Amino acid sequence: MPLGQRPGDKSDSRFCGVETEFDDDMAQVLALNISGGFDFIVSPLMDPTYRPSLVTSGSEAVLPCAGSDLVLSPSQWSSHVVGKISSWIDLDSEDEVLRMDSEIALKQEIAWASHLSLQACLLPSPRGASCANYARCVNQILQGLNNMQLWLRIPLEKTDDDAMNGNSDHPSEGHVDSWEWWNSFRLLCEHHSQLSIALDVWSSLPSGNSLGRWFGEPVRAAIVHTNAFLTNARGYPCLSKRHQKLLEGFFHHSIQIVVCGKPVHNISPGSLESMPTSHNDNHVDGISRHPLRSYLDYVGYLYQRMDPLPEQERFELGYRDFLQSPLQPLMDNLEAQTYETFERDTVKYSQYQRAVCKALMDRVPDEQASSITTVLMVVGAGRGPLVRASLQAAEETGRKLKVYAVEKNPNAVVTLHSLVKLEGWENIVTVVSSDMRCWDAPARADILVSELLGSFGDNELSPECLDGAQRFLKEDGISIPSSYTSFIQPVTASKLYNDVKSHKDLVHFETAYVVKLHSVAKLAPSQPVFTFTHPNHSAQKSNQRYKKLRFEIPSDTGSAMVHGFAGYFDATLYKDVHLGIEPSMATPNMFSWFAIFFPLRKPVCINPGSPLEVHFWRCCGSTKVWYEWSVTSPCSTPIHNSNGRSYWVGL
Amino acid sequence: MPLGQRPGDKSDSRFCGVETEFDDDMAQVLALNISGGFDFIVSPLMDPTYRPSLVTSGSEAVLPCAGSDLVLSPSQWSSHVVGKISSWIDLDSEDEVLRMDSEIALKQEIAWASHLSLQACLLPSPRGASCANYARCVNQILQGLNNMQLWLRIPLEKTDDDAMNGNSDHPSEGHVDSWEWWNSFRLLCEHHSQLSIALDVWSSLPSGNSLGRWFGEPVRAAIVHTNAFLTNARGYPCLSKRHQKLLEGFFHHSIQIVVCGKPVHNISPGSLESMPTSHNDNHVDGISRHPLRSYLDYVGYLYQRMDPLPEQERFELGYRDFLQSPLQPLMDNLEAQTYETFERDTVKYSQYQRAVCKALMDRVPDEQASSITTVLMVVGAGRGPLVRASLQAAEETGRKLKVYAVEKNPNAVVTLHSLVKLEGWENIVTVVSSDMRCWDAPARADILVSELLGSFGDNELSPECLDGAQRFLKEDGISIPSSYTSFIQPVTASKLYNDVKSHKDLVHFETAYVVKLHSVAKLAPSQPVFTFTHPNHSAQKSNQRYKKLRFEIPSDTGSAMVHGFAGYFDATLYKDVHLGIEPSMATPNMFSWFAIFFPLRKPVCINPGSPLEVHFWRCCGSTKVWYEWSVTSPCSTPIHNSNGRSYWVGL
Repeated sequence: MPLGQRPGDKSDSRFCGVETEFDDDMAQVLALNISGGFDFIVSPLMDPTYRPSLVTSGSEAVLPCAGSDLVLSPSQWSSHVVGKISSWIDLDSEDEVLRMDSEIALKQEIAWASHLSLQACLLPSPRGASCANYARCVNQILQGLNNMQLWLRIPLEKTDDDAMNGNSDHPSEGHVDSWEWWNSFRLLCEHHSQLSIALDVWSSLPSGNSLGRWFGEPVRAAIVHTNAFLTNARGYPCLSKRHQKLLEGFFHHSIQIVVCGKPVHNISPGSLESMPTSHNDNHVDGISRHPLRSYLDYVGYLYQRMDPLPEQERFELGYRDFLQSPLQPLMDNLEAQTYETFERDTVKYSQYQRAVCKALMDRVPDEQASSITTVLMVVGAGRGPLVRASLQAAEETGRKLKVYAVEKNPNAVVTLHSLVKLEGWENIVTVVSSDMRCWDAPARADILVSELLGSFGDNELSPECLDGAQRFLKEDGISIPSSYTSFIQPVTASKLYNDVKSHKDLVHFETAYVVKLHSVAKLAPSQPVFTFTHPNHSAQKSNQRYKKLRFEIPSDTGSAMVHGFAGYFDATLYKDVHLGIEPSMATPNMFSWFAIFFPLRKPVCINPGSPLEVHFWRCCGSTKVWYEWSVTSPCSTPIHNSNGRSYWVGL
Repeated sequence: MPLGQRPGDKSDSRFCGVETEFDDDMAQVLALNISGGFDFIVSPLMDPTYRPSLVTSGSEAVLPCAGSDLVLSPSQWSSHVVGKISSWIDLDSEDEVLRMDSEIALKQEIAWASHLSLQACLLPSPRGASCANYARCVNQILQGLNNMQLWLRIPLEKTDDDAMNGNSDHPSEGHVDSWEWWNSFRLLCEHHSQLSIALDVWSSLPSGNSLGRWFGEPVRAAIVHTNAFLTNARGYPCLSKRHQKLLEGFFHHSIQIVVCGKPVHNISPGSLESMPTSHNDNHVDGISRHPLRSYLDYVGYLYQRMDPLPEQERFELGYRDFLQSPLQPLMDNLEAQTYETFERDTVKYSQYQRAVCKALMDRVPDEQASSITTVLMVVGAGRGPLVRASLQAAEETGRKLKVYAVEKNPNAVVTLHSLVKLEGWENIVTVVSSDMRCWDAPARADILVSELLGSFGDNELSPECLDGAQRFLKEDGISIPSSYTSFIQPVTASKLYNDVKSHKDLVHFETAYVVKLHSVAKLAPSQPVFTFTHPNHSAQKSNQRYKKLRFEIPSDTGSAMVHGFAGYFDATLYKDVHLGIEPSMATPNMFSWFAIFFPLRKPVCINPGSPLEVHFWRCCGSTKVWYEWSVTSPCSTPIHNSNGRSYWVGL
């Protein structure tokens, strides 16, 4: 049964598994563990003493499986059993016979698991960084696999002892970063989407930066060993603060917990009532308590005590890590539904209102408030939210306003007209159905208000639009926003990378996507890329930009994989009023923008201490604007999107 | 006029160019240099004082070209002029105006050169390792270029001085490897096939290993500066031994020489007659001698003194760096033409004859020579060359022979029968039309002779065939060959890589090719991969193989690019008689096998001191045999050809 109810959480992390020993009565093993409160078992499918080379050949040879496929129903097999591949398997052994046996057994066991339609198999951990033959064999299997996932078991922390005992290729280094085992394995298997990770969690944990990397990787399960648990005052198992935080991270990322190991806490039956969980009522019926029950209960307790998902997060759940093409509002007309969604972002419009208030008060002193009428033009008025915010600012500050609402989408203009009528704004607001770049304005504006920003700031061509509109702004007029800057940061994002890769073409690797980033590891703080300021009075106006950036990954991260760059913007609306999604200074509770993601055609691996050098270009042609990007350190990638061949924004 | 006549050499390296200054009388510049003995000029196309940002806009603006397109005929432009792009261009300057000017000018000059249908333009050298914006701009140009080549100028040796003067990103390192500039540039431009290299040669040269890398890169020209020349006893320019060897390397690789710089040798007109070249008769007619003529003469002298191409090299010219699919003699029947070619390889058959001689003498002591008849079976007899070699060995050693010639190709069997009749071998030779793997032999053989080896030894399935034939070999019988081993070595081979890439699919990147390697840099000595021994009496017979190899690139090489692996074989026919193509011990004058080439989907860059770890697998299925391969250090590549999905040899 699930760990508990958490409003809005429909993810797999509600389910908790348990690792079991080999037993040829699979039905009983499952029944015991399910009745003990676990949702699924991770169980060996084959007798661990079996070795293919020791089988005397002949037709009577039967695989030593844990029961036939009939001992469980098909839905039991697929919902409640993860196959645990024999841990004696060692495909990179020096012993050729063991290597051959391992290859045969691995293929037999996975074939059997496929036959049973299991959802996943747990593959034994590589014995060290050198696991090419293991990867080759798994890669062969992956080429012809049904829907089953293969979870490669990886220790979260590899202790020095193991390294010293020769379980590593680099014993002299003392420290082994098990992430590198994973990285080599998955590169050999070409980021195969059915190859994922089960992390082994013991008592010692690596640094936070090192742990953070895993949240950009396809981790499906975390196997928590009983000896990772501490003992609380009552003798019950509990986890350290760092472990608790880690498990919460797993829950947030739909990673299932699997409890593993022998019970190492002796709990007297009398103290059961004091456990702070809802599972206690399970064992009053006389069935013997599961020996790992107290560990499960503690995991359940951690799950249940998490805050419920906030409303906005719940709304955005379906968008997590889902790639969308950016809007092209200049070329295409937005639909009513899109306007509807964006207009609901009250935080955004109240920031605009604050900015207009300040601009109006700077422009018109209190003593002239009743005599001077400020000309304000909303360029790209849509269905009118900025018109409303501006009028509210005028009312708030007691300034007189003449508003022109310029909009190129004739469908939105219909709504604008009826809004003006409905609100009785006829004397104040003039609706103009025109593209701001070619409108012949009857007057010049004191204030130009626009909301043309995309997730990456200038990516919806705000610079080109506002350059076009600038000619009807007074010499000393104000643009709201007055400037905006784009930001990028390198990320591990294997899910996004695989989604881009699944299209099997170049175009998708050279496109930027709007995406609600979730299963992403941010490897370094973001840095500014391009800035645009309005109005732009410089002599040589060019909206072309080139920026070279250098990121230093914190050295306690270890090596890391960069699948691409997360992009954001921050805009100064007016003076200290800003608006943006750059994580360190994002405007709270604003939902109009997700981040943008620039993929790399070939992910780049960064070793500790080695900087990441990145180049971004904003290029302008006569009919389009586009970005090009590339990495030049630690190695050079191709320049992405040359001449905007794959992705561009139309003028 | 060409540097001279070298029998068999039709390559571009016969032509020598000269770099000139800007002059707006292009016709005169060309005429002077052609009459001075040069074949082409490398000449600026645009006034070097021109800067786009200084042009006052207006319709009267005309590009300051070196003459209109009419000053030369179309064939003069395309045959005799290489456009030299303005050397003031600096796209990675900190100065934004210079950067913008550079981009505009570069695009204008290349557009002009395209308009003139020049064959090539010489691009100025990058100012340092950081040349991403330059590469971005060139890459944009390459996307829409006609057939013109762009020669990126790269200094062969970058001295410490330059590094200290801030022309480098790594001044602290003291040494700059200019190959890395090229490597970064071409990676950013994705190995574009129209981007190639012109090397600047000065007096100082890097190590031989460092120089060697360039022969695997697309070098089209070597610009030899006059100050690279020494002065001989008579006051004439000459080159150091190392420079001479380098220029010979250039001639061998179709790299054109361009002489550049001011004359630095003062030669008195009286001493002209003593020059050891054929060009001296050019200036008796009173036309003033070209100031760089003595340099040209020396280059011509070096060219002419080279040995003529050997017959075999001349025959193989057309095959150089040309990718061929390996034969599948087991699945397909060879054609007469193929037999014809291979049978001409007298060296190979004389090695076989030597081996059979030794085997016969070991098998039958002299005193029993007349009483014992040795049974020799040729498996895969083709049209009979091994039958003939065996009979000649018998005659040479005075041994009595009974020969079975087993051949599965019914077309070859026709020829075999008539050969036996023609030669009167009816009493000695029995022709068997059968596949050796299923032939029901009437006797058991003392000696099994076969020639089933491919360029990579086992790649035409000799192991599987001989395993099948082994049952009719006597317990103590001899197999000729008795063993064979494959070898690989990492190579830079940008031409081969680009040819594979041009197919734009995965299959071609996961295929091994037979190829006459020429424009290839061998980065480390070859190492053995798989060995097969016959007869094979081991209990667990398997022809699957796995080998992990570790290559150390000599540290004075600098960084290098591995585009794939060159493969070879060496076979022990019998005892000390061997046969093979592994470069360090190749059988001389044998032409039956070219090397094999295993490409990498993504070339791997190796930094100095970093080993290259490679894995090769030979995998066997029920109907096919295939190789898989991958690199795991310095980084992991995908495993190539998983399950033989792209390339396999049919059983």
